[in-house]
Amino acid sequence: MPFVRISMRSGKQAAYKHAIMDAVYRALRERFDVPEDDRFIVVDEHGPDGFSYGRTYMDIERSDDLVLIQITASNTRTLETKKALFRRICDLLVEDPGLRPEDVFITLVETDRVNWSFGLGEAQYAVNDQNGGGPLPKYFRLSR
Amino acid sequence: MPFVRISMRSGKQAAYKHAIMDAVYRALRERFDVPEDDRFIVVDEHGPDGFSYGRTYMDIERSDDLVLIQITASNTRTLETKKALFRRICDLLVEDPGLRPEDVFITLVETDRVNWSFGLGEAQYAVNDQNGGGPLPKYFRLSR
Amino acid sequence: MPFVRISMRSGKQAAYKHAIMDAVYRALRERFDVPEDDRFIVVDEHGPDGFSYGRTYMDIERSDDLVLIQITASNTRTLETKKALFRRICDLLVEDPGLRPEDVFITLVETDRVNWSFGLGEAQYAVNDQNGGGPLPKYFRLSR
Repeated sequence: MPFVRISMRSGKQAAYKHAIMDAVYRALRERFDVPEDDRFIVVDEHGPDGFSYGRTYMDIERSDDLVLIQITASNTRTLETKKALFRRICDLLVEDPGLRPEDVFITLVETDRVNWSFGLGEAQYAVNDQNGGGPLPKYFRLSR
Repeated sequence: MPFVRISMRSGKQAAYKHAIMDAVYRALRERFDVPEDDRFIVVDEHGPDGFSYGRTYMDIERSDDLVLIQITASNTRTLETKKALFRRICDLLVEDPGLRPEDVFITLVETDRVNWSFGLGEAQYAVNDQNGGGPLPKYFRLSR
Repeated sequence: MPFVRISMRSGKQAAYKHAIMDAVYRALRERFDVPEDDRFIVVDEHGPDGFSYGRTYMDIERSDDLVLIQITASNTRTLETKKALFRRICDLLVEDPGLRPEDVFITLVETDRVNWSFGLGEAQYAVNDQNGGGPLPKYFRLSR
C-alpha cells in the first residue's frame, strides 16, 4: 500500500530511474512488510529552477543527484522498522544506480489503514478489518 | 479544503484530464461534505520511466490508464464517509472519462483542520474555530 | 526538515520560481524554527489542463498565478506558530515575486519526528531522541 513519490533533477536515463524505483520497492518488500506487487511509485523530475536543497544540512554534503523520496503508508510500523527501511533504501540505492548515501533523503507520511482504495472503489483494508481481519479478500475481475 | 494530486501516464487529451478532475471534485461535493468551489486539484503526468504500479496487486488487474489519486483533507470524516467517497469517485470516473474501475487508486492523507490557509495568509478554519465556529468568515477583497 | 512541494501554472521565469522558493524557505526560517540550510523544496508546473482551482472559494478571488504550497513537517508546532508561518509566507510572496495575497494557498501535512532521513540511511531525529536529545549529531563524510 505504500504510495511513493520520488523527486529528482531531470536528465537521467530510463534505466537509472527504473533502478531507483526498483530499489525503493525492494526495500519496502524486505523491511516494511509490503506484499508482493504492492508497488505504486511515481518519479517527478525537476529542472534547476524547480529543485532546491540544503547542500550541507546536518553536515551531509548533497549533490544534484539528490533524490527526495516521500512514502505515504499506513501507520502500523514501529520505529525500528522505519529505521530499517531507511537504511535498506539507502543501501540499495548506493548499490544501484550508484547513488551517494548523502543523496538519499526520505520522509514518511502515515495514514490510517482505512484510507486506501486499491481499485474498484472499495476501501479494501477497512472492509477486511470490519470482517475480522484475516487474509485480504481476493478480487477476480476480468481486465478489459 | 481537500487538495488533490492526481498522477497518471502522460499523453491523454485535455478533455480526458478535465473529466477526471471534474469527477473527483463532484464526488467530494456529493459524498465528503465539501463546499461549492472548494476545488484545488493538480494533475501530474509521467512517462513510462516515471510511473510504476503493481499490475495485479489484490488480484485487481490494472492497466496503464491507472490514476493514482492522493487527497489531502481534514481529519473530520467517518469511515463510512470515506468509503462512500471512494465508491463515488470510482463510479464517476467509470462514467466519464470511462476508466476501468480497476484503474482507480485512491489514498487519503488527513491533517488537522487548522493546517490550511486558503489565501491572504490566514488560517481560516483555525480563526473560525477560535471564534466559536459557525459560518466561515467571508472575505471581500478586490482582485487586482 | 520541512519538505515543500509547490504547484503552479507553467510558464514563469526562473527568477520568479526562485523567488517563491526563497520566500517559503525564509518564512520557515523566521517563523517555524527551521535550521539554516534545512531546505528541501520542489516546484511542480502544470498546464491549464492539469491545474484546477476554486476561483472564489471563501470569497477569495484567485487568479492563474495561484500557488499551492504543501509543506510536510514534524508535528511539533503550536497553532500560533502555524498561523505565523502562513502569514509570513504570504507577506514574503507578496513582496517578491509580487504575488497577490489571494493567490497563496498553503496546506501543512504533519508527521512524526522519527519519519525523516536526511541522508546516509539514518533516521537522524529518532537516533538523536533515543540518545536523550541535545544537539543533533554531526556527519562528516567526504562528498564524491
